[in-house]
Amino acid sequence: MDQVKYLLDEKELPEAWYNIIPDLPAPLPPYLHPATYQPTPLPPPLFPMALVHQEQSQERFIAIPDEVRHVYRIWRPTPLVRARNLERALDTPAHIYYKNESVSPAGSHKPNTAVAQAYYNKQEGVKRLSTETGAGQWGSALAFACSLFGLECKVYMVKVSYQQKPYRRSLMHVWGATVTPSPSEETESGRRILAEDPNSPGSLGIAISEAAEVAFSDDNTRYSLGSVLNHVLLHQTVVGEEALKQFALADDYPDVVIGCVGGGSNFAGLAFPFVRERQRKNLKTRFLAVEPTACPSLTKGPYAYDLGDAVGMAPLAKMYTLGHTFIPEGIHAGGLRYHGMAPQISALHKAGIIDAIALPQTTCFAAALQFARTEGIVPAPETSHAIRAAIDEALRCKEEGVARTILFNFSGHGHFDMAAYDAYLAGQLVDYDYPADKVAEALKSLPKVE
Amino acid sequence: MDQVKYLLDEKELPEAWYNIIPDLPAPLPPYLHPATYQPTPLPPPLFPMALVHQEQSQERFIAIPDEVRHVYRIWRPTPLVRARNLERALDTPAHIYYKNESVSPAGSHKPNTAVAQAYYNKQEGVKRLSTETGAGQWGSALAFACSLFGLECKVYMVKVSYQQKPYRRSLMHVWGATVTPSPSEETESGRRILAEDPNSPGSLGIAISEAAEVAFSDDNTRYSLGSVLNHVLLHQTVVGEEALKQFALADDYPDVVIGCVGGGSNFAGLAFPFVRERQRKNLKTRFLAVEPTACPSLTKGPYAYDLGDAVGMAPLAKMYTLGHTFIPEGIHAGGLRYHGMAPQISALHKAGIIDAIALPQTTCFAAALQFARTEGIVPAPETSHAIRAAIDEALRCKEEGVARTILFNFSGHGHFDMAAYDAYLAGQLVDYDYPADKVAEALKSLPKVE
Repeated sequence: MDQVKYLLDEKELPEAWYNIIPDLPAPLPPYLHPATYQPTPLPPPLFPMALVHQEQSQERFIAIPDEVRHVYRIWRPTPLVRARNLERALDTPAHIYYKNESVSPAGSHKPNTAVAQAYYNKQEGVKRLSTETGAGQWGSALAFACSLFGLECKVYMVKVSYQQKPYRRSLMHVWGATVTPSPSEETESGRRILAEDPNSPGSLGIAISEAAEVAFSDDNTRYSLGSVLNHVLLHQTVVGEEALKQFALADDYPDVVIGCVGGGSNFAGLAFPFVRERQRKNLKTRFLAVEPTACPSLTKGPYAYDLGDAVGMAPLAKMYTLGHTFIPEGIHAGGLRYHGMAPQISALHKAGIIDAIALPQTTCFAAALQFARTEGIVPAPETSHAIRAAIDEALRCKEEGVARTILFNFSGHGHFDMAAYDAYLAGQLVDYDYPADKVAEALKSLPKVE
Repeated sequence: MDQVKYLLDEKELPEAWYNIIPDLPAPLPPYLHPATYQPTPLPPPLFPMALVHQEQSQERFIAIPDEVRHVYRIWRPTPLVRARNLERALDTPAHIYYKNESVSPAGSHKPNTAVAQAYYNKQEGVKRLSTETGAGQWGSALAFACSLFGLECKVYMVKVSYQQKPYRRSLMHVWGATVTPSPSEETESGRRILAEDPNSPGSLGIAISEAAEVAFSDDNTRYSLGSVLNHVLLHQTVVGEEALKQFALADDYPDVVIGCVGGGSNFAGLAFPFVRERQRKNLKTRFLAVEPTACPSLTKGPYAYDLGDAVGMAPLAKMYTLGHTFIPEGIHAGGLRYHGMAPQISALHKAGIIDAIALPQTTCFAAALQFARTEGIVPAPETSHAIRAAIDEALRCKEEGVARTILFNFSGHGHFDMAAYDAYLAGQLVDYDYPADKVAEALKSLPKVE
């Protein structure tokens, strides 16, 4: 019988993360200080020194500490799965593979960096981490990691998701975290937003401001970000490094690598090692980042310096952005609602190495349902964007009569997103077109750097 | 670094289930017809012939069909995990292992039999399966299996769980099932119960009656049970067969095998292959079934013939029972609320091979939290009973200074049980003592067979 899963023994867990910085087509534009617009590293009051260094390291491979690998082994290496039931249902000649990151305790790829960040903070004597979360995938991952390393965890959760996904909050409580809906009255940043709009649904940018403010104002607290930054994407490359080994076992290789993108970390984690191999071996691998039409930074935003958060707590980064004041609609893929895109992905998109498309949510939920009813696993709404794109690619293969190999990142399960499925099945989900007017308005607030 | 997970390649997926019937210390008492009290096989109008035969087979090993193994490989073999973080937190010399059955798409061990049952029914031309579910673990597993084999699925869900766990219902909807709270007005059995008590919270016995009635009254529908019956326990033995191979890899062997018990299927699935090895090799392996104090059939019930359901749709079975009219309190471990115990487990308990204890729910939730904060994974409330017993055993090892090897079945995750964790963390969970009066009353309704 044909093989379904490609597993690695834990002895084969990668020993290093892959740092794409030295392999980028051009040097990455530096962060700029939010007040002076001068080049700056990540600010050490916010981050531990180990991560400040990793953020700008020129080392191609960075060793994964033993303590981090020990925790990874609770769920890693994750399976690479050939979606044979889905292939059969689509009657496609394509080979569809997914890297199943949903098997982590928090249910997504997010613990790959959460565990690393908790470890480095613990090493430097930090007592508490503060962070933001959208749909709650990141907040729960950090809560999980903090519980293992004995750190306190304070999470600002985007208010619309806090209301949509109460059980994600419960999950964070199970791991001992404190969770506050954002914007909140607890911080100056939150109060400033609420003064302007008491009914603000929140945004990742706002929640980042609140979490960063807390870290700035407390010596024992550091800030932790779940996506966008170089060191976060770095930690996620364990996904792609495993997948490379697994494709060798499968005696196959992807023609297309697909991932959903919010800040970009799950896509980058899977794709970057394949980007390296593409350059090294002169391959033609295609990379496809999939974003929601409600928040289409890569496909509709300019490539420009913008604030990473809503109010200027964090440095400026050069990235595809919809403007840091842009607040997307409350789509169920709460993890894809960030206004900007990771600088590394932005640079690779600018260089023509990564393609991007934007998809509306109902067609993604339809794909999620088809996946659940063939492959069995219920996807997170974020992940459904990657699945839709993978299915569409497989259907193109069928039309063209070509057996391309498709790989996508199954970034997380949807066990805490059942209200979204209820809404979809009841026909209550609506799609949002490109919010051109709101984005045009938000882009007026771009800092005048260049 | 010491190994954490023991994985098997899918080529090592067991090729046969283990049937304990020929190895039982005495012949299993036959089922009795609910009207005549005469020995009877499982009634074919309810079950496909393949399962009727499996139920009383004397073959020690029964081949797992290729189509079933193909589906199993979506998530099987499951990991055997050494709980090193928990061991460290307990400071115990014990080796604690858990077989992680939560990695299935439905989140528990239940798909092991759901997939097999859906397959055999499909083979015999059945169009629809009807079933009952308590907490929803079983209903969602059967919905998952039916979606893969193209069968309709009709689920009667115990009303108190339907209300406590709305997202388990959503999960069944995602896989295309129809879900009705039980007791319902849809069946004669449901109407009979509602006439006596319009506010009945439901019970597994009542839901079984409704689901069986639907199957009796429709030629295209068969009934499917998620526990208790011989063929269900048979299908679960894939768990223990894998664990045996994994302990060989670990160069270790359990001194104690622990599982929570409702109907008994997850415990049996893990334990029976080890019971066989104990007899074959003259070992001293101890087997411990853990039930809730709110529904203590093994520890407090008599070993007697009783109805399998509430009203006599199903045959009588000889088992430890609290009486088929007994309705347990609405504990969060909804899967442990069945009034009886699987006949095979009952026989092994009677013979002194399986020990049993009953535990109250708050101490089990405390263990679940400790597990989540050390090993990372959030357990189902049912599973927390096995964890409590495993931790207590590990603490005894510490007291005695003995390094026993403990194995328990991590039967399912708690992703759809967050309301229970909310209640626990808010201090709102109460414990229920042995409901002696209610049981005494219920036992008056035992059929006068012997």
